[in-house]
Amino acid sequence: MKALVFDGSLKIQETPIPQPKEHEALIKILFSSICNTDLEIIKGYMGFTGILGHEFVGEVVNRSSDFYGKTVVGEINCPCGTCYLCKTGRKTHCPNRTVLGIQGHPGVFAGYIVLPEENLKIVPGNLPLTSAVFTEPLAAAIEIFEQVQIKPSQHVFIFGAGKLGLLISQVFRLNGCDYTTFDTHGPKIKKAIETGIHAKELSALGESEKAEICIDCTGNPAGINLALAHLYPRGKLILKTTVAQSEKIDLNQIVIHEFELIGSRCGVFESALRLLSQELVNPQPLITAIFPFDDILQAFHTAMQPDSLKILIRHGS
Amino acid sequence: MKALVFDGSLKIQETPIPQPKEHEALIKILFSSICNTDLEIIKGYMGFTGILGHEFVGEVVNRSSDFYGKTVVGEINCPCGTCYLCKTGRKTHCPNRTVLGIQGHPGVFAGYIVLPEENLKIVPGNLPLTSAVFTEPLAAAIEIFEQVQIKPSQHVFIFGAGKLGLLISQVFRLNGCDYTTFDTHGPKIKKAIETGIHAKELSALGESEKAEICIDCTGNPAGINLALAHLYPRGKLILKTTVAQSEKIDLNQIVIHEFELIGSRCGVFESALRLLSQELVNPQPLITAIFPFDDILQAFHTAMQPDSLKILIRHGS
Repeated sequence: MKALVFDGSLKIQETPIPQPKEHEALIKILFSSICNTDLEIIKGYMGFTGILGHEFVGEVVNRSSDFYGKTVVGEINCPCGTCYLCKTGRKTHCPNRTVLGIQGHPGVFAGYIVLPEENLKIVPGNLPLTSAVFTEPLAAAIEIFEQVQIKPSQHVFIFGAGKLGLLISQVFRLNGCDYTTFDTHGPKIKKAIETGIHAKELSALGESEKAEICIDCTGNPAGINLALAHLYPRGKLILKTTVAQSEKIDLNQIVIHEFELIGSRCGVFESALRLLSQELVNPQPLITAIFPFDDILQAFHTAMQPDSLKILIRHGS
Repeated sequence: MKALVFDGSLKIQETPIPQPKEHEALIKILFSSICNTDLEIIKGYMGFTGILGHEFVGEVVNRSSDFYGKTVVGEINCPCGTCYLCKTGRKTHCPNRTVLGIQGHPGVFAGYIVLPEENLKIVPGNLPLTSAVFTEPLAAAIEIFEQVQIKPSQHVFIFGAGKLGLLISQVFRLNGCDYTTFDTHGPKIKKAIETGIHAKELSALGESEKAEICIDCTGNPAGINLALAHLYPRGKLILKTTVAQSEKIDLNQIVIHEFELIGSRCGVFESALRLLSQELVNPQPLITAIFPFDDILQAFHTAMQPDSLKILIRHGS
């Protein structure tokens, strides 16, 4: 099969189709999509080499699997199941885990992948494949609500109207809270407003305006200090930005204002599939372009443009 | 009256006795004590000038007060009572507040202070004055439990066996959790162990040992990164250190491990008085020395020594 391999540079290579073991599924990839983490990996983040990609929807093709013939999405973390963190409900933090296309597990920018069957969720029949491919990033957006009680009476600022910021905004919209999504990039704000998000230019945010909950999904190391400047005392800042850089923070202000900072990563697939299949979250306007797999290098180039949101890859014929 | 004034340097000055307004108490200071915040202020923290000091026990001496003749301690924040933060239960974060000896309010290193009566708590008759003076820092230790659920089954690391670290350790001991207090300074560990605290040299902490809850009360900007290195994924780091310096933090690890960082400051006086008067917390071993007010400059000198814990000042005759 053809696969997109990163080994310091990106290239399409012919590689063998992976072989499933017991309780594993061989999945033919139908659609995949490019995440900011993929773009950070090719800048050196995580030190990953191999087949990239972790957002996908596919069909199980090995008859030995209970999921044979099903259209599925899959959790990206493959934990050991036996360590202290696995046994205390933190499988996504298992220190022995591999992570699809990120750490020790060949990714989805290929014809086929192998995943443990326990990672799979069946895609509801009514859900378009080009929406199902958003399950993983939407689950990451929903994770915020798994970690923090967001009260519908609260005032929320979301910093960043990128791919993840717009999914997070859609989920906050469902909560009924008074949220505003800020960005500095005009076309992204325009897109956000088109999709029903309450979005504004960052320049419209008054210096002294504050919220009880701030979300940093700017993808920029400076995002944290921006968000802290607009957080009420005892407010909560949810951190979604992962970048290959450290940032200097004034720790006094965290103590004096009793801020809470909460890092947030992967989430629950079932919830994401429920919101998608009931059309409570609509990811379709976030699709900037769909490329055939053979043009995946061009797809990466497009994904890096500042105006780009989600880039999908159509696999197979 | 004589007062310790900071205006770039520390000096004893003759200043007028403050005059109470309606609903304010004039308090004759009996004992005060030196906090690390005082030591940071004279390094430039908070930009405060005026009479220093905020830890005290005293007697109300104006007949116009309902507290006349009572021995009291007092909350240090004087909020406006009308702003959004005051009205939403966050008086200690009122942006219009003054803070005793820290911000816009003359402090307790003097013969007398004035405080709003609503700030006062009567000291139980059985409580030695030299223990009552610990009410404010003990309340700051208890604030952690006001903010975070600490489960008695949890594993806790407390970094720093200074004045605040030892009070925090005593409160954690009461919770029944499996805590260890770490410091690099031999005499402080010895003192901690003498007072019944489970304390160890930091060098005894294995590189890969982790806890669900970490407390940074090192008073050192590097404390946060030390604590993060020993925190389990989804663990909570409580920040107590305030220093006049920023620190560089790897934000990725907060997101990847879904850490929570929680700043923690002032707490509830009533709870502190309950624990002190029932002798569940014993601050007496934390007293390094008691100086008469006239020797307060010498007291500050002693407070800055690495072996020093709490330095008390005896006021009046």
